[in-house]
This record gives sequence, structure tokens and C-alpha cells, in this order.
Amino acid sequence: MVPHLVTALTGPINELEQRVLDSMPAIERWFRLEWMEHTPPFYSSVDVRNAGFKLAPVDTNLFPSGWNNLTPQMLPLAVQAAMAAIEKICPEARNLLVIPENGTPSSFYLANLAQLQRIFNMAGLNVRLGSIDPALKKNTTYELQSGETLTLEPVIRGKRRLGLKDFDPCTILLNNDLSAGVPGILEEIYEQYLLPPLHAGWSTRRKSTHFRCYEEVAKRLGKLLGVDPWLTYPLFDRCENVNLNESTGLACLQNQVEVVLSRVKRKYKEYGIKEKPFVVVKADHGTHELGIVTVRDAKDMQALQERIQTLSKGRKTPLSTHDFMVQEGVQTQERVNDAVAEPVIYMMDRYVVGGFYRVHAGRAMDENLNAPGAGYVPLAFEHSTQLPQPGIKPGVSAPNRFYMYGVIGRLAMLAASYELEATDPEDQEIE
Amino acid sequence: MVPHLVTALTGPINELEQRVLDSMPAIERWFRLEWMEHTPPFYSSVDVRNAGFKLAPVDTNLFPSGWNNLTPQMLPLAVQAAMAAIEKICPEARNLLVIPENGTPSSFYLANLAQLQRIFNMAGLNVRLGSIDPALKKNTTYELQSGETLTLEPVIRGKRRLGLKDFDPCTILLNNDLSAGVPGILEEIYEQYLLPPLHAGWSTRRKSTHFRCYEEVAKRLGKLLGVDPWLTYPLFDRCENVNLNESTGLACLQNQVEVVLSRVKRKYKEYGIKEKPFVVVKADHGTHELGIVTVRDAKDMQALQERIQTLSKGRKTPLSTHDFMVQEGVQTQERVNDAVAEPVIYMMDRYVVGGFYRVHAGRAMDENLNAPGAGYVPLAFEHSTQLPQPGIKPGVSAPNRFYMYGVIGRLAMLAASYELEATDPEDQEIE
Repeated sequence: MVPHLVTALTGPINELEQRVLDSMPAIERWFRLEWMEHTPPFYSSVDVRNAGFKLAPVDTNLFPSGWNNLTPQMLPLAVQAAMAAIEKICPEARNLLVIPENGTPSSFYLANLAQLQRIFNMAGLNVRLGSIDPALKKNTTYELQSGETLTLEPVIRGKRRLGLKDFDPCTILLNNDLSAGVPGILEEIYEQYLLPPLHAGWSTRRKSTHFRCYEEVAKRLGKLLGVDPWLTYPLFDRCENVNLNESTGLACLQNQVEVVLSRVKRKYKEYGIKEKPFVVVKADHGTHELGIVTVRDAKDMQALQERIQTLSKGRKTPLSTHDFMVQEGVQTQERVNDAVAEPVIYMMDRYVVGGFYRVHAGRAMDENLNAPGAGYVPLAFEHSTQLPQPGIKPGVSAPNRFYMYGVIGRLAMLAASYELEATDPEDQEIE
Repeated sequence: MVPHLVTALTGPINELEQRVLDSMPAIERWFRLEWMEHTPPFYSSVDVRNAGFKLAPVDTNLFPSGWNNLTPQMLPLAVQAAMAAIEKICPEARNLLVIPENGTPSSFYLANLAQLQRIFNMAGLNVRLGSIDPALKKNTTYELQSGETLTLEPVIRGKRRLGLKDFDPCTILLNNDLSAGVPGILEEIYEQYLLPPLHAGWSTRRKSTHFRCYEEVAKRLGKLLGVDPWLTYPLFDRCENVNLNESTGLACLQNQVEVVLSRVKRKYKEYGIKEKPFVVVKADHGTHELGIVTVRDAKDMQALQERIQTLSKGRKTPLSTHDFMVQEGVQTQERVNDAVAEPVIYMMDRYVVGGFYRVHAGRAMDENLNAPGAGYVPLAFEHSTQLPQPGIKPGVSAPNRFYMYGVIGRLAMLAASYELEATDPEDQEIE
């Protein structure tokens, strides 16, 4: 299925596309050299937004689900990349334990687990699913819509190892983002490979750290391409320890919103962009009851204030103090039919292995699409998957557009690699 | 296009397929461990024959052409594998020089060169084509059927490096099998990566060495699968220094033909195979005027003798003395429509990246298909390229059949790796 992208292939983004295509061998070599110094995350997915005048990631997931949305044509790439990843990290591996999200899995999430199991099985591993959800007391088998069955088994923790009954894995793959914190059952596992490492979980990660690293690598790519790096990154700032129960907390947020908005406005003016700038307020780590809030002007700030008041009203415990990030909003100019869409890029080891459009008919182009009601459409491949077609003028070749998305996706993955190095607790101890 | 394989998915080969599928993670792990100890050839293609009761390689090419026969769907896999190969061998590489065959290129070979250029360009290298043909004195541009153009440039040899005008490559890829011997212009290049190494050329290679190595790895895989390894390798023997001008030369060949035929007959008897056994006589290194001769019985031996007499008649120079290999013939039970077909598996680094059927309407199932008149049909992919589908009974799933072909192809590649180690002149000097 090829989505009908109304505006995807138009706009000033074409110049960026041309630069990216012209520099393809240089970009690939640059990534190659970076991966000599830095370890790519085991797997990742990146939400990218194409505003027509800029292209930037807005979220980098180090425990990606949604693998079921990849088409069968993309699967061999994922298997090959999984082979490359395993070969480097744990070539002797025989058994892989996948740890899913806690809670009762949705049919979508089950399909994701089945796909992960398929990929790693074909890459040469015996794969079983071990839940760390304390509510799962015994083996539980689910039937998928395809008729396949999947069994979630409760993990068994030994003194130094984690496993299942009659299954001692050498490698453990987390598909659980640990947003509720790192459970004790995963701590002090020194004899097995735990992928990604625990500090990739949301109890350690900070979005602002990720985007600071991203800005750094985007500036270096910008230099290589000879383009303003702002065309590939969102401006941002952060507020620490915001107590929404006190007016000082909101004041800090309001101040940062104004700072970031005015920086975005200057950039829009510089480029003659007529769109209305906006920022997005979101929790710096994990999630917050406040959710993701779009702020365009004073009116939205008022609405934010009212929302906080509503959330606070009649609660037993006050709203938790949290760090917030205020980030330049990147609207999406992509459409699949009439619904707003954003590309999501999937990577395994250092390779782009596929992607799809997240489509949401009920949302606007400056809103978060990762919300109930979203649909998924495979990235359009007519002939050659993500492979670019040099010599074709920008803006008319879907593969060239997707190649550029893949470059931005990998740039975010590289930033995640920098981020994980900076936050590695083992490195901290050495200092 | 999906070829209609009349008999591909029937026959006792199904038991082998079942064993291969059941052992998938163990096979993949075994290859992974082998590649920790042995370096895969940079690229390779393997002709495989499925006799219905056995499946074996009959030719392993370390300078594969025909990359143009891969479908666009396979290209991303080739690019990803090329990235992995370059990353390991020469991550800093910026420029790649491809050395094509000598002589005026056919339109097919030009399409092959264009495909190689495309693959390595997308993997992040500037690619140019440098001919070592002394007849090519100046840059020569050819137009392809697609309308693309390709330029062959004469190489320029410096004291220690090989390059082109204004092009100093760090890596040189040979797509020239050096069957006429290693030219001086390629010798003593110590500062650049030369891939594959010179001793992979036909001036050093011996088919019998390759198949001895293949037998060794096939026996180990057989043990892993719990099957008779003869189901995956052809029996063979060799005659050294055969002088076809003397009757003693022919007598040696005749003797070995009888020895190999009787070994094959015993095996056919053991398995109750009703087919007529045959052997194939071919030059042990490179090619010989005699060509590839199929011998089923005394009558064919008589025909061989007459052929030698015809070749010898009225010559100024006698037929050259050569080593010959006498190899168990593996008939092919594959058909695309009514034409006899054999799968050819393409590999880059350690990965199967694609393949196709070599089809020859004018040849019989016990004859060589790599001859004028052959056509090429992409391997059948309905949904998931080479990815196997566990749980489906053997003989009905094309992907499962192709997975088995890929295992045999990689087994031949592993044998080539052993072979190149055994014949590495640098290792010989150390001894």
C-alpha cells in the first residue's frame, strides 16, 4: 500500500533533500566513523516531523514497540541487522529472553512481540518471553489475530542470573521502558547481557539530555552538508523542579515558553516563514499527568493554567514536582489522504530497517499524533525500499525523501548513543 | 515475477528441508561462531543444484558478476551487507576502485557494473571503474539500456598505489577473476586494500581444494543436523598433470571417472535412488579448451576421447597439460516452466543478499547451465524474501526452500574462507 502524500514532496525541504543526496557518500562515511567511536543503541525508533521548511526528530524511543507495523518486505533487513548486532555483542548467544511491558498486552502489542520473536529467531536465537510484571504468576498464553499463540512466562531470578523455567538466556532484551523505575529483579545482573542497559530506561533518561546531544551531532552534520543545523533540530529549554501547585512553578514554565517562542520567532523571521510558531511543554523524563501541551500564545498559556487547576482540584496528593522541557514545535506537513501523518523510523544496530507513517485523522498538524486513534501505514516503497535515487530532482522521489528521513533517524540514534555514554553509571564511577 | 517451479517443492529433499528449518537457530549460531574464527570472502555467488534427493553447490565464484539480476527488492539487503563489510575491513574508506573484467563489456556486464557501483555508492563510497585491460588506453563511456552511462578509465600505477586520474582509492574491488594470471600491475600493492585478495583468483584457486574444504564444513553441518553429509556435497577426485596428447593422460581420467562413478553408484544404491548416476569432468583451475564434460557411461568416455582427438587435430601447439577434477554430477530437478533451472545464491560479507534462477531451455538436467542461452529469473518471493516460515510442512513454502538454499550457499562461502586461508601466500611464508 502506497500512501497518498498530499504535501510530502513539496516545499523548501527540497533544498535540504538535495544537499543530503549530494552528500550521501560523505554522510555514510561520517556515520561509519562515528560508529567506530560510539556504540549504537541495540534498537530504536524515532518520530520525525517534516514541517516543509525543516525536518527534525521529536521523540527517540530506545525500547521500540510497533515492530508489527513493518511490512514483510522490511523483515529481511531487520533480520540481517539483528544478526550484525548479535554478532558484535554476544556472538556465542543461544537463548534470548525478551522482557515485555507490564500489564495485560493489547492485541497490537502481542503482534509486536510476535514480530520481535520472529526477527531474533531468524537471526539465530531461541527466543522466549519473560514478564517482570509481579501480577503475572504463571505461564499465560495469548492467541493473536493471526492465529499464532504467544506465551508470557514469569521470570525466575537467581542470585546472579535471570531466566525462565528450563531456560537460561545469555542475553536479555528489554522491550519495557522502565518508566515506573528499575525493578530490583533487573538489578545486579552481571553475568548476562542486558540490552539496552538499565540507564536507557525513563528512570534515568532526560529528554533535554537527548536533545542536547542531538543538537551537538546535528551541528556537525550541518557543517558537513553546509546547511543551518536548525533545519534539522528543534530549539528547546528546560525548567527544573517545577512545582505546579505553586504559582512560582507556572511562572518558570511561562518564562521558558516565552524564551523558546521568541527564539523560534527570530528563526521564522530569518527564513521568512509565515506559519505561526509554537512550543510544546512536556515532562523531561517519562510522563506527567499534564501530558503534552501545545502553546502558541498567551491564550494557550491561560488554558494550561486552567488545566493545572483542574488537575489539582480535589486531589489527595499534590501534583508531583517534575522537570519540564519546553521544545520548539515542529508541525508536520505530511498527509496520508487528509489525515495528519508523521514518519517513524525503525533502526536495529546502526541500520535503518524500515518505518511507517503514524496517521491521526483527529489531530492537527501541530499536535502530538502518538495518541489513541492513531493508525499506521507502511512507508511508501514503490521499488527500492529506502534506497535513494541519485540524479532525480528533489521533491519528486519518495525513496530520496525516505533516505533523508533515515539520515535524521540515524542522527537521533547517534545522539542516543552519546546520551547513553554520558549517563552510563559505570563511567560515572570511574571519574 | 514468480517462476513456476514444477518440481522444486517435491521429493525427498523435504526431509533435509525439515531438518534445516528445525535447526535454524543452531545453524545460525554455528555460522556466527565460524565467522568469529574465519573471514568471509568479501562477496561471492554459489551455483546450487537440487537433485530432489540431495542439494549441493557445484560452483563458488569469488568475483561474482550478474548483480544486475538481483531485483530492486533485494538491493537494500545488499547495501546493508556492503556497509557491514566496509565497516569491518576499511571503515575510513572514502573512494572505491572497481576493476572489471578485461575486454569489451557486454550490455549484461555493464548492467552488473552499474549495479555494483550503485550498491557501494549507497553504502557510502565514491565508486569509479578502473580497467587493467592494456587495450583500454583512454576513458571510454558506454551507454546502458537504461540510459545511464558508465565510464571505464585506464588505471594508473604508482610505485606503491593503484588509482585513476585524480582518484586515489583506499580500497580496490576486483570483479575480474584473474583467470589469465595475476598481472604485474596488481602486484606489490601494500598500501591499499585489495578485495578479494589476489590468491582468490583462478591462477591460484583449485576447484578440488575448494570442494575438499566444502566437504569438511558439510560434514560438520551434517553432524549438527543429524543427516548424512553426502546429501549436501558432491563426491570428487582429481587427476594431476593430465596430458591429453598422450593416451596415459586419458587413461588416468578414465580411471578416476570409474572410481567416482562407482562411489556415486554405491550411494544411489544405499538410498534406493533410481536415477542414472553421472560425473562431470572439468579443469581443476580456471578453464580448459575441453570445457565441462558430462560422463554417464563408457559411451560418453568414447565421445570424450573423440572430442580430444578433434581438439588436437591440426593444432600448432599441443593441448596444455592440466589438472582435472572428476566430480559427482548433481542433476537439477528445478524447472521454470519447462526449462531446466538452478538457483544461484548471492552473498556479500556473511549475508545472503539475494539470488535468482539460471534457466536454460536448451539444456538437460544433468548439463551445465552456465552457457550461452541461459536466462535469469529472480528467486520467487511472495511475501518475505528469504525468510523462513517455521511451522509449515516441508516442500510447500518457497521461503523455506530458499532458506535452505541460503544455508548451502553460505556453507560454500565458509568453505571458500577455509580455502583462502589454506592458500594465503603470507601464511605460507610464515611456516
